[in-house]
Amino acid sequence: MRKERDKVKIIPLGGLSEIGKNITVIEYKDEIVVIDCGLKFPDEEMLGIDIVIPDTTYLKKNINKVKGIFLTHGHEDHIGALPYVLKEINVPVYGTKLTLGIVESKLQEHNLNGVVDLRCVKAKDVIKLNNMSVEFIRTSHSIADSTAIAVYTPVGIILHTGDFKVDYTPIDGSVIDLARFAELGKRGVTLMLADSTNVERPGYTMSERTVGQTFQKFFAVAKSRIIVATFASNIHRIQQVITAAEKYDRKVAISGRSMENIMEVALNLGYISVKKNTLINIDNINKYPGNKIVIITTGSQGEPMSALSRMAASEHKKVNIIPGDTIIISANPIPGNEKLVSRVINQLFKKGAEVIYEALADVHVSGHACQEELKLMHTLVKPKFFMPVHGEYRHLKQHADLAMNLGLNPNNVVIADNGDVIEVSRDSIRKTGTVVSGQVFVDGLGVGDVGNIVLRDRRHLSQDGILTVVITIEKETGTVIAGPDIISRGFVYVRESEDLMEEARELVRDVLKDCQEKHITEWSSIKSNVKEVLRSFLYEKTKRKPMILPIIMEI
Amino acid sequence: MRKERDKVKIIPLGGLSEIGKNITVIEYKDEIVVIDCGLKFPDEEMLGIDIVIPDTTYLKKNINKVKGIFLTHGHEDHIGALPYVLKEINVPVYGTKLTLGIVESKLQEHNLNGVVDLRCVKAKDVIKLNNMSVEFIRTSHSIADSTAIAVYTPVGIILHTGDFKVDYTPIDGSVIDLARFAELGKRGVTLMLADSTNVERPGYTMSERTVGQTFQKFFAVAKSRIIVATFASNIHRIQQVITAAEKYDRKVAISGRSMENIMEVALNLGYISVKKNTLINIDNINKYPGNKIVIITTGSQGEPMSALSRMAASEHKKVNIIPGDTIIISANPIPGNEKLVSRVINQLFKKGAEVIYEALADVHVSGHACQEELKLMHTLVKPKFFMPVHGEYRHLKQHADLAMNLGLNPNNVVIADNGDVIEVSRDSIRKTGTVVSGQVFVDGLGVGDVGNIVLRDRRHLSQDGILTVVITIEKETGTVIAGPDIISRGFVYVRESEDLMEEARELVRDVLKDCQEKHITEWSSIKSNVKEVLRSFLYEKTKRKPMILPIIMEI
Repeated sequence: MRKERDKVKIIPLGGLSEIGKNITVIEYKDEIVVIDCGLKFPDEEMLGIDIVIPDTTYLKKNINKVKGIFLTHGHEDHIGALPYVLKEINVPVYGTKLTLGIVESKLQEHNLNGVVDLRCVKAKDVIKLNNMSVEFIRTSHSIADSTAIAVYTPVGIILHTGDFKVDYTPIDGSVIDLARFAELGKRGVTLMLADSTNVERPGYTMSERTVGQTFQKFFAVAKSRIIVATFASNIHRIQQVITAAEKYDRKVAISGRSMENIMEVALNLGYISVKKNTLINIDNINKYPGNKIVIITTGSQGEPMSALSRMAASEHKKVNIIPGDTIIISANPIPGNEKLVSRVINQLFKKGAEVIYEALADVHVSGHACQEELKLMHTLVKPKFFMPVHGEYRHLKQHADLAMNLGLNPNNVVIADNGDVIEVSRDSIRKTGTVVSGQVFVDGLGVGDVGNIVLRDRRHLSQDGILTVVITIEKETGTVIAGPDIISRGFVYVRESEDLMEEARELVRDVLKDCQEKHITEWSSIKSNVKEVLRSFLYEKTKRKPMILPIIMEI
Repeated sequence: MRKERDKVKIIPLGGLSEIGKNITVIEYKDEIVVIDCGLKFPDEEMLGIDIVIPDTTYLKKNINKVKGIFLTHGHEDHIGALPYVLKEINVPVYGTKLTLGIVESKLQEHNLNGVVDLRCVKAKDVIKLNNMSVEFIRTSHSIADSTAIAVYTPVGIILHTGDFKVDYTPIDGSVIDLARFAELGKRGVTLMLADSTNVERPGYTMSERTVGQTFQKFFAVAKSRIIVATFASNIHRIQQVITAAEKYDRKVAISGRSMENIMEVALNLGYISVKKNTLINIDNINKYPGNKIVIITTGSQGEPMSALSRMAASEHKKVNIIPGDTIIISANPIPGNEKLVSRVINQLFKKGAEVIYEALADVHVSGHACQEELKLMHTLVKPKFFMPVHGEYRHLKQHADLAMNLGLNPNNVVIADNGDVIEVSRDSIRKTGTVVSGQVFVDGLGVGDVGNIVLRDRRHLSQDGILTVVITIEKETGTVIAGPDIISRGFVYVRESEDLMEEARELVRDVLKDCQEKHITEWSSIKSNVKEVLRSFLYEKTKRKPMILPIIMEI
């Protein structure tokens, strides 16, 4: 039945050479399976950008082929672009119960509830399409109900691990289905795509359960309130806080919008087990003595508007940090957030609180597989071909090296880029082309209306500000009849720079006179003369390069 | 002779609750000793700022008292503000040979050579002032020729450790003078100020020599060129690269301006020992086979304009990274630089180079004392009073805790702030007031002309750009005779937003008409009406808040 020439296309539209924005296309003839649809948080140089989503032009063009988006788990970097992408291609979305619960609450925020066909699956479920079928396989990760995805194709099994770690003692007892990975390996996996996030770390990621032990240790000795900040989506972490609170007879209050949202989803769907009367409203925390209270809050990354940051800055309406409070920051700073987290820690210490964070105690474990876990996965799955995913180039490279060290033929390992088309058959793999891919910036309500020119201007403005030069000219004669007026913002203290500005005005007057004498009447020429003279004058005087914006009004 | 009421003032003008900008005043009657005079690199939110220096108004006001600036070592965060501060208070500067060599090259850049009275000292030297004297004591650190400073005052010894670690096997054989610290401790130290940078790290900082062993390991196997990026000032690190290069018969070339500068200083002063013919000009690297070449370069922090970044981006004129090159990044990313470093690593890997960095091998050690070393220092010096310095609040707090855990009375420990006046006598220590202190921003040629308003504007501009509205009005009648013109930068793609802009113009016209009808002629009122209408219109349409700058011209 199988044609030897059969080929399946793998097209990563995001998640390669970057952290986040994970989305992978698996295409066979008229069928496309999409795995995940995530967002990325902006780099520092993407000024003013709220989030970054993948360019899904390719899916729009092939909308009739797309059979569905299959989600591995409910983290933002795997589901966060859905509300934007589904507006353009409304296809069925498959995921486990918790994953879809989170997706649903997200779609509601975007007024998309009821519009999208959400199809709930369980681990071990297989979705049959025409030529392919899709199986969900239980994994461990820092969010509950995570899965890997195996796609059965005419060229064999393509396995996408999703984000995973190997946790033998997960909080919900739902252990990663190593046996299934071994079965697939025995049967023969043509291609594996696997998480590369922690490939630089030797050894094993510790079990989530070890964090619970640390919690218990601190809960046993804390004499007043305990405030735990963690990722809202880490339901097992939250469960462990609740378990420790119940053991030490403390009430639990929730702070922070995303924490409240996820708690609601998790409670409704039964992912959190909590005794009656444990949970209290944050408004009621002062009705109990400090040693009877735990607050679970957002803000573990020091995000300026988060609940913990507001507490630290005395701007939280309900929680006022006082000496004796114990604050546990149960997360590592994501690269780029170190300074924000540090600022919050400093503020909390200054208020007299005890602050427990990763440098001081084991209050966090990663959700991603370290080297030994990756080796285990490779050894069980024994794929013929391997393509590292989810990571910067350094991670992909090292994951490729790891696979080759385990014996994989270097020709069978592909480090791809976003937009690459990788064609895989039963006995070959190669890049055969590229499709449109990239990043789309979301800024406020605008999706894609901020591009490189706008960002370049923002960067320019951010460094040295702007200087606006306004001139009113009489149309007929070209005579200046008002101005030049010069107004600056973000450049210098205006009051202390009056002389500089007067000199600048004088220079502009000279340029205008000069232009008139030389009969230069093209606005663009006048403007560029003004710009050039001001630019070099200001650079000489200040060694700064503000944006210069000449405006000519004509009457 | 001693009066029991004698008091010495300690005034930290920088370095507390921050990393960098270290400067401490020790004052007795008409004598002021200043220890260090450093800069700080700007935080992300200090847009466009080049460096941050301490506010030294207090020194200017007391210039007649200032007997000199005494430098512990030659790092930027201890000497970098000198060119700015010396322009205002030209006092003698004391430091060891290498420290002053670096200072001299820095003063030259600011055209201050010959103007400043530089006084070279050696470890163990004592500078006698009128009522106080100042002793330099050898320490270990990540730059050669580092010292602690003991100030002998009428209230006893005040010891400032400077930045230090305990390295029993330093590269230059010049071991930290633990015996002297012990002697002072025996004699009695009234107050110790000690480095808190690494107080969160348990154990010991490894010896600088261990990095040399790692170098040798990689040099033994590298088949082509080796490129080592490190801090220019880490002369011992550079020495170890040279030593390894000579052992494996490789020539050494230097790349990067600061690396070249420091090499020149270090070679001239005899701080680097190198065989004849080892060093070659970077222009000549291609005259040798790859396995005969080592390049030492700047850029270990991923700084965008640094030599290594330019190599990684194929923008370096002399060095072109090729497959087979081994690049060793011999430094840890300073908090805030993680993403920059990561970008460079990714680019280098993409060019086919092998990249060795801290996540993969022991290619760096810190220059600061970890907990066990701090305990050693406290135990040797046994100060009566203790004031942690050099660190964010979290570090100061934990260093204070460490001292108390060693038995110091909590009342004898002071966590101070920049600008605090701490009065210390033989048997008391307390804060008695504050002096002017703070940060002065250096931006291009401007020192202090960029303040909070300018920065606030830059932040605003960076997020959503600017919208300029220009109107020309006839003075007499208040009639609009040109405009409103609207020009935006950094807000939206202009081409795709013509409708939005036209609508905005229409709104402004309405406002102006309305103003005229209501006989509102105050420019400020008209402007604020225009601003308000546009602000809410644009926010509704885009959920963005660009800066709105209305300009009215009058003819």
